[in-house]
Amino acid sequence: MKTNLLHDLPTYSSHEIFQTLLEQDGVRIERIVSTGQSSPPGFWYDQSQGEWVLLLSGAARLHFAEPEDVVELIPGDAVHIPPHRRHRVDWTHPDKPTVWLAVFHGG
Amino acid sequence: MKTNLLHDLPTYSSHEIFQTLLEQDGVRIERIVSTGQSSPPGFWYDQSQGEWVLLLSGAARLHFAEPEDVVELIPGDAVHIPPHRRHRVDWTHPDKPTVWLAVFHGG
Repeated sequence: MKTNLLHDLPTYSSHEIFQTLLEQDGVRIERIVSTGQSSPPGFWYDQSQGEWVLLLSGAARLHFAEPEDVVELIPGDAVHIPPHRRHRVDWTHPDKPTVWLAVFHGG
Repeated sequence: MKTNLLHDLPTYSSHEIFQTLLEQDGVRIERIVSTGQSSPPGFWYDQSQGEWVLLLSGAARLHFAEPEDVVELIPGDAVHIPPHRRHRVDWTHPDKPTVWLAVFHGG
């Protein structure tokens, strides 16, 4: 009945890996594993749901628009991204897996 | 706009420390810090909400009733506790803080 979010990590993948851990009562919990990926140039997420995100391992840099903000994330760092707050992933650590926990709600 | 869940940890507290990180759209995200605490003898949680829980640091042992089950948790381990699944915390690490992330939903 338990699952470990830090196990079974790829050392490299050509794309980010998304895994839904729970989807119930309007909440969706996802594990996302990045191995150096970032958002494509010029791409911005613009989500109808709120997203609370926690970095579990690795390192990442989030970039927000209007107002512009850059947030460096290390393990344990959590950020809440309100609906339609435009953002992108500028960078994830190239040499070790970056594991994100994302909790989507509402929208 | 970011907060680090592994920082500002007490080395010892006489009780568990609960901090609500987000409460929106029927979801509540909490950080819980245990420093050796466990549930009182004979006490069982019986919650109307579902709880998805992730251990971020330390170590813990959860105990479930009907059917009985004991789950050892290390960092990265996640468990979903459905509504009214009776459970208790049998043990948390006595020598280092145990940090839990709990996502409550529904109910």
